[in-house]
Amino acid sequence: MPKISQKGLQMPESPIRKLVPFAEAAEAEGKSIYYLNIGQPDIPTPQKALDAVKNNDLNILSYSPSSGFDSYKTKLAKYYNQNGINISKDQLIVSTGGSEALMFAMGSITDPGDEVIIPEPFYANYNGFATAANVTVKAVQSKFEDNFALPPISEFEALITDKTKAIVMCNPGNPTGYLYTEDEVKQLADLALKHDLFVIADEVYREFTYDGAKHTSIMAVEGLENHAIMVDSVSKRYSMCGARIGCMVSRNTEVMAAAMKFAQARLSPPTFAQIASEAALDVDQTYFENINSEYVNRRDTLIEALGQIEGIKVAKPRGAFYCIVELPVQNSEHFAKWLLSNFEVNGKTVMVAPAAGFYSTPNTGLNQIRIAYVLEKEHLLEAVSILEAGLKAYQGD
Amino acid sequence: MPKISQKGLQMPESPIRKLVPFAEAAEAEGKSIYYLNIGQPDIPTPQKALDAVKNNDLNILSYSPSSGFDSYKTKLAKYYNQNGINISKDQLIVSTGGSEALMFAMGSITDPGDEVIIPEPFYANYNGFATAANVTVKAVQSKFEDNFALPPISEFEALITDKTKAIVMCNPGNPTGYLYTEDEVKQLADLALKHDLFVIADEVYREFTYDGAKHTSIMAVEGLENHAIMVDSVSKRYSMCGARIGCMVSRNTEVMAAAMKFAQARLSPPTFAQIASEAALDVDQTYFENINSEYVNRRDTLIEALGQIEGIKVAKPRGAFYCIVELPVQNSEHFAKWLLSNFEVNGKTVMVAPAAGFYSTPNTGLNQIRIAYVLEKEHLLEAVSILEAGLKAYQGD
Repeated sequence: MPKISQKGLQMPESPIRKLVPFAEAAEAEGKSIYYLNIGQPDIPTPQKALDAVKNNDLNILSYSPSSGFDSYKTKLAKYYNQNGINISKDQLIVSTGGSEALMFAMGSITDPGDEVIIPEPFYANYNGFATAANVTVKAVQSKFEDNFALPPISEFEALITDKTKAIVMCNPGNPTGYLYTEDEVKQLADLALKHDLFVIADEVYREFTYDGAKHTSIMAVEGLENHAIMVDSVSKRYSMCGARIGCMVSRNTEVMAAAMKFAQARLSPPTFAQIASEAALDVDQTYFENINSEYVNRRDTLIEALGQIEGIKVAKPRGAFYCIVELPVQNSEHFAKWLLSNFEVNGKTVMVAPAAGFYSTPNTGLNQIRIAYVLEKEHLLEAVSILEAGLKAYQGD
Repeated sequence: MPKISQKGLQMPESPIRKLVPFAEAAEAEGKSIYYLNIGQPDIPTPQKALDAVKNNDLNILSYSPSSGFDSYKTKLAKYYNQNGINISKDQLIVSTGGSEALMFAMGSITDPGDEVIIPEPFYANYNGFATAANVTVKAVQSKFEDNFALPPISEFEALITDKTKAIVMCNPGNPTGYLYTEDEVKQLADLALKHDLFVIADEVYREFTYDGAKHTSIMAVEGLENHAIMVDSVSKRYSMCGARIGCMVSRNTEVMAAAMKFAQARLSPPTFAQIASEAALDVDQTYFENINSEYVNRRDTLIEALGQIEGIKVAKPRGAFYCIVELPVQNSEHFAKWLLSNFEVNGKTVMVAPAAGFYSTPNTGLNQIRIAYVLEKEHLLEAVSILEAGLKAYQGD
C-alpha cells in the first residue's frame, strides 16, 4: 500500500473540530449540546447580504477574476480607507476565507524549512497551515496571568534566525481575546523592521473591541509598507462564516505578485459569497454597535458566571469573542470528551475546545479550554451551569 | 526589504490567465473579445441549482462541516454510484473547487522533493499546485500526431524513482480533449500497482465524451482501491465554475484521514455553492445529452473551420471541450498578445491560451495554442475567421 506523506501524518487535528465525532455521537443519543467550541456566532447575517444573493440575476455561475470581482474590491478598499487603512483595490486579493489568505501569504514568503514566530496560544489552524507549508512555528509564550499581553520583545528577538521569515499575530486575539495596544503593535513592527521580517497580521476581529479600546491595524503603521501583510475575513464581521470570503492585503508589490500566482492557480473565489460580501459592506455603523454591546454583555455574563465556579480562572478578553479558561482538571481534552460522551444535565451538555491545540509548545495549556461566547445570554448561563456541574461530577485524571 | 519565497518566484503564471491584462487593455480600447482561452462555458447553469440558492431560507450563513453538508455528500455518493463508481459518502470530502481537491490530494501524499509523473500537455495549474507543494513534475510527452493518446508505459516507468509518489492523469484531458480508453487506464493502474504509486485522476469532464466513447473512471478499476484518488468538480458538469465546489474521493482510509485534516484547517467549503451543487444533482440525463450534442456540434464546426486555414493543424478531441492547435508561428504567446493588443476585425479580436504553459518541459508546444470551444457555433466561426485573418496579417517572430 502506498504511503501517505509525512506532512499528512504530522498535520495537527483542529482542536475546534477534533471532538466533532464525540458531539455527533452525543447528538445521535438525543443529547442537545451548547457549542462553545467554535466561533460560529448566532448573530443573524445582515439581511442585505442574504437578499443580494436571493435577488441575484445570474444565468451562468461563471468564474470571477482571480483577485475577486472589481466592484467588490473597490468597495472593500473603501471600507478599509474608512477604517484608517489607506490602501487601493490593487493592494488586495479576495480569498476563499481568511484561511486561504493566510495560505497565500505563507506561500508567498516562506519555503520549506523557514520559520515564523507566533505568540502562543494562537489560532490553532496556523499550526495546520505551517505544517502544510513545511514551515516551523517558533512560539513565544504569552501568559495567562497577563491576560495574554504581548510577551517581552526580547523573547521574540531571541528566536530570530536566518530562517525566520515572519512574525504572525492575531489582533484581537483568537483564542485569547487580547487586544494589542498601539504600543505593542509598534514594538512588533520595530522588531520586524530591524530584522527585515514580514509581519502577517490576522485582523478578522477588527470590529470586536470592547471597553472603548481601539484597534491598531498593522497596515496603519508607518514605515512598515513593505513588511506588513494583513489577513482578513467576512466570517465574523458579518456572521458569514459559511460564505468563505476573506482577503489578503499588502503594499509590497512583490508579495502581491507572488500571491496573485497562487490565486490564479485556484482560479477564483466563490461567486455567490462575493455577492453577499459586497452587499454586507452596506451595513451601517449601528450594526456593529449593536453587536458589540451584545458581545460585551455576553462576555460580562460569562466572566461573572465562570468567576463563581470554584477552581476556575478566566483571562478577561477585550476583543474578539473568545476567552481562555483554566479548569481544575489535569487534561481538559479528556474532560471535554467526557462532557460529550458521559455527562448531561436534563439531556443537555456542553462542547468546549481543549486549549492545548492552540499552543505549539507540547504539553502546554493542558488544563485550559477556549470558550467562544457566541450564544445568547441565557444559553451561556445554562452552558456554564452545565460546565460547573460537570466539573463537580468529573472523576477523570 | 524582506524577500519573497523561492516558491513565490517560481510559481508559474497561468497560461489561461496571464494574458488577462492585455485583454483588459483591449477591452478598455473598445475592442470586443471572443474568449477561447478559458473553459468558461456559455451554457446556462441548471435553473434548479440557481433557484435553490435564490430560495434558501438561511438566517445565519454558518460554517458547514469540513467535509461538506451531509445531505450533499449523500446525494453525491449516489450520483457516483449511478456512474459506476461504487463509493460511500465517507469516501469523499467536498472541496472548494477541483483545485482544492487536488491540493488536498497532493498534501496528503507528497512531501517537498517528491515527484509526480504526468503525461504532458496537462492542465497548467498542476504545475502551480506542484510548485506550491515543492513537488517536482516529471513529464512524459504525449504526441500531437497521436491526438495525445497515452504514451508508452515504458516511458512512465523510466521516470520512476524512489521519490515518485503518484501518476497524475486528467481524463478526458484538458487541454488535449483526449479520452483514455479502458485499456490505457488499466495500463496506468497496473503500473501504479507494480510500483506502489498513487494515481490521482482528474475526472471533472467525465460527462463530456463524444462519438459514443465511454469514460473509464480510475475509481472503477478493480484492485486499485488503495491507490486511486479521484479529483472532481461541478464547474464544467453544470456550468457552475463560479460555485467553487469539487470533491476528493478515495477508498484509502489513511489518505482520507490526512485529507480531512487539511479540510479541517480551512474550516469548510462554501455554503451557498453547496446548496447549488446539491440541487444541480437533480438534473436529468437529457441535460447532459443536450449539452453533449451541442459540444459535438461545436467541436465539429471548429475542427472543420480550422482545417481550412493554411498551416494550421488540429488534434481531434473526443472529450472535454478543448483542443490543441498548431499554428504557423514561432511563438504562440507573442501571437496571442498581438491578437489582443495589435489586431482587430471590425473591433473584434480573439483570446487564446498559449499552449507552452500546459507543458512542464521547457520550450515545448511553443507553436501551439489551446482553444476552448465554449462559445456557440456562430461565435466560434467568427472567432476562427478572426484567427485566420490574424495569421495572415501577423508579421511577428
